[in-house]
Amino acid sequence: MNLTILGCYAATPRTFTNPTSQVLEISNRLFLIDCGEGTQTQLRKNKIRFTAINQIFISHLHGDHFYGLIGLISTFTLLNRHNSLTIYGPVGIKEVIKLQLRLANSWPQYELNFVELKSKQSEIIYEDKKVIVRTIPLKHRVYTNGFLFTEKTKERKLNVDKIQEYGIETCYFQNIKNGHDIVLDNGTVVPNHVLSLDPPKSKSYAFCSDTQYDESIVPIIKGVQVLYHESTFLNTEEHIAEKTMHSTAQQAAQIAQQANAEKLILGHYSTRYESIKPFKKEAETVFKNVLLGDDGVNFKF
Amino acid sequence: MNLTILGCYAATPRTFTNPTSQVLEISNRLFLIDCGEGTQTQLRKNKIRFTAINQIFISHLHGDHFYGLIGLISTFTLLNRHNSLTIYGPVGIKEVIKLQLRLANSWPQYELNFVELKSKQSEIIYEDKKVIVRTIPLKHRVYTNGFLFTEKTKERKLNVDKIQEYGIETCYFQNIKNGHDIVLDNGTVVPNHVLSLDPPKSKSYAFCSDTQYDESIVPIIKGVQVLYHESTFLNTEEHIAEKTMHSTAQQAAQIAQQANAEKLILGHYSTRYESIKPFKKEAETVFKNVLLGDDGVNFKF
Repeated sequence: MNLTILGCYAATPRTFTNPTSQVLEISNRLFLIDCGEGTQTQLRKNKIRFTAINQIFISHLHGDHFYGLIGLISTFTLLNRHNSLTIYGPVGIKEVIKLQLRLANSWPQYELNFVELKSKQSEIIYEDKKVIVRTIPLKHRVYTNGFLFTEKTKERKLNVDKIQEYGIETCYFQNIKNGHDIVLDNGTVVPNHVLSLDPPKSKSYAFCSDTQYDESIVPIIKGVQVLYHESTFLNTEEHIAEKTMHSTAQQAAQIAQQANAEKLILGHYSTRYESIKPFKKEAETVFKNVLLGDDGVNFKF
Repeated sequence: MNLTILGCYAATPRTFTNPTSQVLEISNRLFLIDCGEGTQTQLRKNKIRFTAINQIFISHLHGDHFYGLIGLISTFTLLNRHNSLTIYGPVGIKEVIKLQLRLANSWPQYELNFVELKSKQSEIIYEDKKVIVRTIPLKHRVYTNGFLFTEKTKERKLNVDKIQEYGIETCYFQNIKNGHDIVLDNGTVVPNHVLSLDPPKSKSYAFCSDTQYDESIVPIIKGVQVLYHESTFLNTEEHIAEKTMHSTAQQAAQIAQQANAEKLILGHYSTRYESIKPFKKEAETVFKNVLLGDDGVNFKF
């Protein structure tokens, strides 16, 4: 799993920071999460293979999370894209994108699909052979979702030594990988756990931005490997966080701790702070494995 | 008169070039012309005093000329702007901006006005004490206007020596500046041209992008001081220019020559060219005073 932070600062783009956008590579899929203004430039700067993105997930319709989307859609047209593209985002996203395409009289030659979200419950919005994406309903000033990306349980691994010992034939291998016990010719049942080893752990990533502190998301992201949780403010500005429906670094860490996440990535920093180092320090008072998101940073998990 | 080119390349932003946007300072007014994605970042990079912009002129609704507008409008809100802002652009611009503000539930606290354009004739769309702005109807794939910015004729200058010679009193000075003759107490008429000197020439700037080669704009911009005319292609790609309703550098120069412009600035270069120098060379075969527009370049006239 490979996460590239294209931008993770709140509010509008500056010459040296970018609004929210991330690229998640999981099970060889490339997902774009949020798309603030300038995302297409950030994709280029970070040498991401644009055209391999077939799904874009938009958390909410505040500008710093989606004003770069129409430009990216148009650029795909100029690049002569052929693959279909699906946009997942709040109701209204289809209308605004289609209006802009109509006014520009520039319709994509590729298939452009929209999945508009309105549920206040977590739901599966994407599923293929290897990955499931669920919404994480968040509490913000407008309708907002986070997204939980989970690899499906992988096949068990063959325990080659044991398989040779029992003389098990090739035709049974898939059954063993699928977790089934095997009945030998003499009627003996060999339990699956003898013949196979646990698969590598499924990877998972939860993106939670923007949101106020909200413990109701904990059951949805329980045990997640990597949690990105917004931390727009430090504790000293908790009153502003509350008023604007954002979180502090400490609150992000509390969610990570309750969800028993392996790692927490911080981001969506207010541009009022000169340094982001205090965010890590504050979160570490509650949770051990804290990483600082920053523009252009790549994490491998 | 002071022109800052924030971006002057066709198509979408890249890491090293920007789509169309310019800031024109004329008679102490600061006008923004077009607003491609990333314009607000370019404004910052070029240290333009954002909030002094009270009028924004949008030529047409192709993305590389206006996808940065909604972000700039939102940033003005965050910056706690108070002055009213007026957007001049094709019909549809109000709907798309208002839809995005509604979806984000973020209404500006400043007055946001729209002047929607639909005329196919040149018309005055802005006028104050010192400056007039007229549309220049252009021929492109969607409804498009260029804009002609003209300083109003300035007051004539007093010819101090002559005024003393005739012993003319202060109360007549404004009359003289306004171009009137003066009648002395003895009945003698002193013609204005004896008492005054020509005012400094009024400055003027014509912005023409995007457009195919179109001689019908010549009467509108006749005698303009500085003409910015798009030159998306070189002559070798004239067939593509024709097909996409753009111009070549040579065609831009032909318009400048016919309009008897003092200077021509080229821009809106297709990103297919590695160097923009050949554009100047090509235009100079037709017109003498050619300047190469480029991102971040500032011209004083």
